[in-house]
Amino acid sequence: MQELEVARRAAQIGGEVVSRYFRDGVTMRSKSTSNLVSDADLESERVIAACITESFPNHVILGEELHTGEVTAEDLWIIDPIDGTNNFAHGIPHFAISIAYYRSGQAVCGVVFNPARDDWFVAVRGEGATYNGKPAAVAQADSLSEVLVGLGFYYDRGAMMEATLAAARDLFGQEIHGIRRFGTASLDLCQVGTGMFGGFFEYQLSPWDFAAGRLFVEEAGGRVTTARGDALPLETTSVLASNGTLHESLLSIVAAHHP
Amino acid sequence: MQELEVARRAAQIGGEVVSRYFRDGVTMRSKSTSNLVSDADLESERVIAACITESFPNHVILGEELHTGEVTAEDLWIIDPIDGTNNFAHGIPHFAISIAYYRSGQAVCGVVFNPARDDWFVAVRGEGATYNGKPAAVAQADSLSEVLVGLGFYYDRGAMMEATLAAARDLFGQEIHGIRRFGTASLDLCQVGTGMFGGFFEYQLSPWDFAAGRLFVEEAGGRVTTARGDALPLETTSVLASNGTLHESLLSIVAAHHP
Repeated sequence: MQELEVARRAAQIGGEVVSRYFRDGVTMRSKSTSNLVSDADLESERVIAACITESFPNHVILGEELHTGEVTAEDLWIIDPIDGTNNFAHGIPHFAISIAYYRSGQAVCGVVFNPARDDWFVAVRGEGATYNGKPAAVAQADSLSEVLVGLGFYYDRGAMMEATLAAARDLFGQEIHGIRRFGTASLDLCQVGTGMFGGFFEYQLSPWDFAAGRLFVEEAGGRVTTARGDALPLETTSVLASNGTLHESLLSIVAAHHP
Repeated sequence: MQELEVARRAAQIGGEVVSRYFRDGVTMRSKSTSNLVSDADLESERVIAACITESFPNHVILGEELHTGEVTAEDLWIIDPIDGTNNFAHGIPHFAISIAYYRSGQAVCGVVFNPARDDWFVAVRGEGATYNGKPAAVAQADSLSEVLVGLGFYYDRGAMMEATLAAARDLFGQEIHGIRRFGTASLDLCQVGTGMFGGFFEYQLSPWDFAAGRLFVEEAGGRVTTARGDALPLETTSVLASNGTLHESLLSIVAAHHP
């Protein structure tokens, strides 16, 4: 599929930009972290968008930084040039470029790429998901007591933060193996799709955070809804992902605390 | 220093064992996760201890699984054959082998090695700390609002879990950039030493979890105490690590919730 090849190439090109800033950042970080992140974000989105537009001049692009395409566009690319900017800025090699192609509102293919680890998560609707070229599948688990659960706090420090901590507390009550907070939503979703996490939730995410990762989870055999259990809209929303069998158990806790 | 060379070689040999189990685990995991972990832990500790004993037949070894040396021994090796077994068991490539050599109760050298990422954290008392061969230093930050803070829950699901969540809540109140829960204490400590985290705390850890990482933090310019601010004992204890300048700010929150 041409769209998938373009998504991969765009992720590779964006990854080279981001990696360069990440390496340089080791010496630059003390000067101006926010500028460093902003420059890397903008340049990464620019080269990714250029790569897409070269092949598909009539397609619409929605990006975190520069591109404001409408989600209703027939041929829509949704890109996050650096997901996990907080990790990126602090030198933690756990961040990603996320690129998804949607046709008529449906995810067709998605790529999540961590250039610091050369980790590739790729999904194509109807054709499955792969992690570094090997088929990916969600965890085989039918009890919360068998899994790790990922969570995120977005940028909120108020009601959403409180709700997230309260949900974590209730999850511990279900004897989960542990919670994980890795700090990059697109990778968190992929970690559900590879079976590393039994589930993941966050009370607020933007489309570019989950556009590719949600397809990865679905194609790996899992399920993604809002944290209330509704169909996931292509807009700012809460997100709950799971291996499918644990969805209702997770929902009973996560929905109860939904701000 | 001969001890450092032996520590490195032992970590390399243990890492080969652990990596083999980690790769095989992808297919074995559904059968018996706990047996898989236990086999890998035991075999890793066995080869690490053999490597040490070959060079230092009279030294004492304290390990998580097999070796029950006294911490008062003059020449003491403290080893964790797999720190982060929960990540290991769930296929998350974030776990480590931790090896430290103590003379007369003082840390002399320490190695923390993540074989899944080929990440090496090495410290020698008085000679500094290196991350993959390059000098490591703690974060330059004098406000909690500039850093990420790592935390851990150990295995407790009661008072310690509640205290940890309460401390996290208070840290958010200080406008920290975020909390992180990566699930491997030895690596969490090293992430303080590399400046990725401004601080890290956990209300209960065993000597093998922190014996090497605490030296890494100290040699990188940081500070490690109990979560009450006392000198760190070589026994089961709470741990607070920081870049030094943030120690009192972190302590005021972390000590207040100490179970």
